[in-house]
Amino acid sequence: MLIIENIGELVVYPPGPTPGRQMGNVSRLERASLLIQGQAIAKFGRKGEVSAPPGCTVLDAAGGCVVPGLVDCHTHAVFAGSREKEFVQRIEGRSYLEIAESGGGIRSTMRAVREASEEDLVRLALPRLRRMLESGTTTAEVKSGYGLTVDDELKMLRAIKRLNTLQPIELVATYLAAHTVPPEFEGRADAYLDTMLADEVFERIAEEGLAEFCDVFCERSAFGVEQSRRVLEAAVRHGLRPRVHADQITQMGASQLAAELQAVSADHLETIDDAGIAALKAAGTIGVLLPACSFFLGVRQAPARRLIEANLPVAVATDVNPGSSMVESLALTLSVACTQLRLTPAEALVAATANAAAALDRHAYLGAIAPNMQADLLVLDVPNLEQWLYHIGRPCVRTVIKRGRVVGESEQTVLE
Amino acid sequence: MLIIENIGELVVYPPGPTPGRQMGNVSRLERASLLIQGQAIAKFGRKGEVSAPPGCTVLDAAGGCVVPGLVDCHTHAVFAGSREKEFVQRIEGRSYLEIAESGGGIRSTMRAVREASEEDLVRLALPRLRRMLESGTTTAEVKSGYGLTVDDELKMLRAIKRLNTLQPIELVATYLAAHTVPPEFEGRADAYLDTMLADEVFERIAEEGLAEFCDVFCERSAFGVEQSRRVLEAAVRHGLRPRVHADQITQMGASQLAAELQAVSADHLETIDDAGIAALKAAGTIGVLLPACSFFLGVRQAPARRLIEANLPVAVATDVNPGSSMVESLALTLSVACTQLRLTPAEALVAATANAAAALDRHAYLGAIAPNMQADLLVLDVPNLEQWLYHIGRPCVRTVIKRGRVVGESEQTVLE
Repeated sequence: MLIIENIGELVVYPPGPTPGRQMGNVSRLERASLLIQGQAIAKFGRKGEVSAPPGCTVLDAAGGCVVPGLVDCHTHAVFAGSREKEFVQRIEGRSYLEIAESGGGIRSTMRAVREASEEDLVRLALPRLRRMLESGTTTAEVKSGYGLTVDDELKMLRAIKRLNTLQPIELVATYLAAHTVPPEFEGRADAYLDTMLADEVFERIAEEGLAEFCDVFCERSAFGVEQSRRVLEAAVRHGLRPRVHADQITQMGASQLAAELQAVSADHLETIDDAGIAALKAAGTIGVLLPACSFFLGVRQAPARRLIEANLPVAVATDVNPGSSMVESLALTLSVACTQLRLTPAEALVAATANAAAALDRHAYLGAIAPNMQADLLVLDVPNLEQWLYHIGRPCVRTVIKRGRVVGESEQTVLE
Repeated sequence: MLIIENIGELVVYPPGPTPGRQMGNVSRLERASLLIQGQAIAKFGRKGEVSAPPGCTVLDAAGGCVVPGLVDCHTHAVFAGSREKEFVQRIEGRSYLEIAESGGGIRSTMRAVREASEEDLVRLALPRLRRMLESGTTTAEVKSGYGLTVDDELKMLRAIKRLNTLQPIELVATYLAAHTVPPEFEGRADAYLDTMLADEVFERIAEEGLAEFCDVFCERSAFGVEQSRRVLEAAVRHGLRPRVHADQITQMGASQLAAELQAVSADHLETIDDAGIAALKAAGTIGVLLPACSFFLGVRQAPARRLIEANLPVAVATDVNPGSSMVESLALTLSVACTQLRLTPAEALVAATANAAAALDRHAYLGAIAPNMQADLLVLDVPNLEQWLYHIGRPCVRTVIKRGRVVGESEQTVLE
């Protein structure tokens, strides 16, 4: 048993999904204590209402704020290679095509991932996941999608599965069956889909327990609406739940497709229109916003306030990937959400916990502080939630608790 | 003596000021070593060209990139209080006036600073400066400007002077004689300036060695051009060099004033026009951009590329302050400069070293890696400059060297 005492502010709200207009309604319990039994939250209350049972380990929050561990519901955190060269080319005004022709773009990550072994992918991801943990992420979705052959996609998924056992962040795997058309299938997208959607692929995924979700990049430069439908219908037939990269650059009705197929989430949404918003809302699909991606690329942000005012449950994730969002910290991403999407800190936190857990179908046990929820918690070294996201880029996570155990403690040392 | 060996990339360029169109011209020395004697850089070269003298301490850069220590040439890093409440109000759409009326705005920091002792200000600033050091800042300008009485301004300046002896960052003090009109002088700005510009104030500053620069907030809501001229002319008569908060919200010709008075820098420049750019250029005044401030407030950025194309030497600083830029990390600010101002990483680094040192009149010994320059250096745990700023928000500074000594080492530990 573990008790956290001397909590300056315990941030409490119901498990998700939380509709947009209720996302800001969080309660604060001051001078609180919280008792953990096994892997779950047992109870919490004001000082004196919860006492430490004999033999219970005591963690002093020293007046710091305690929030749920963050859930990063859209990442490409397993990859190889680095694309800073392209970052510079984009700043210099080179076009997407020029970048691709000089060896950049998603195909450069594809080449690096194909060359990497499963072991390489695991080794490269471990420090990345450690930094994500230190900035507060305790659960993360991770997609395949850079291998672009059946074997290389399975290699990525196996790396994700192994990483789940090697470090504290709980990983949720998504088979990103259609991210882009690889060079050997140039101009033959449907033939490519034939190979990626073969029954044997899904059977292998099911047998080895390699993925829970399937995703597609529905975009003019990638896969059209009908191709995306084909991907996701195949996935559903094989027991994977669909999610969609929707409405990022081109408005093609991808959110409507996500809604029609009862996708658990539609992600990006920079160009979503009213029809798309209404469709997602009617379907109960979570809208996942990726403000670090737009920030990283210097392009327009999603209309977050419109989604929230429409009462859609909205989540926020990093989209961490080497091409369009080299941002590992979900906490920093939430500060971007506050300043660029105009989410309040309370809305941003609910977006990255209760609603992000709903986007991963884990809201029954993750994403909020309530009795019997899994004890995934952060002790911050600031006294309230607002100060955390206001103090942009400051490492504020003092202690990370995953399934009731202390798994991370950040400290920085200075000589002199 | 200290030698840094096994440097993956040593980033070399001439000391500032560097005109805009040359800011991107940096050289890279791969597989380099760098020898420090006393407080200065003695020499550097490729592996084998520089060898460790007997008894020399060896620091292994392990293939990491080495750059000059960062110079943060515009900060309000000494203050009391926290303004996260106002951060939320702004997101909720409250006006500047509504925020001020509910107790927010600069006057809330004024009240907290007036209530604080010099000792309090020192104690509050120390962890802030430690975090700035850990993210790579080795020199920082710090302004007064929150006391708004002669005694409280002197208290701030004395706190800065003491802080200079208590921690490794080299601090450069600016008397911000006219930041805003305090409530007791409401409607009587000139009478307020009478008190702040009295000869005794400048004599006290000179006797105690409290400041080197004088600054004014030239803005419709603060001080007009003629009032600003009065402030800076008084400062110059007393031996302080001028700098100006210019063209942030309202275009009033503040950059021309800065040029006319030979100010060392004109800072902000979000609304600068062509006449202002030409004036700064002719005067040799550095244009200091504060992209974290615009990012924090969610407002427009300065026209950085126009300034650079006009060949103006441009610097970038954090503007760290509790109201409009709660961003302590200059490295993060440089990533904002890359993505939002479209500076290349090389331009951003020169802006925050060579040109920032010029904005503090310290370019003769600070801001570049060259023989006899002060040995202020960062060893990064990434192989090249570009990867540092591309990897947004990642703590990349492994070792901080100030005046030839290792003063900071960041490490983060994770249990399990």
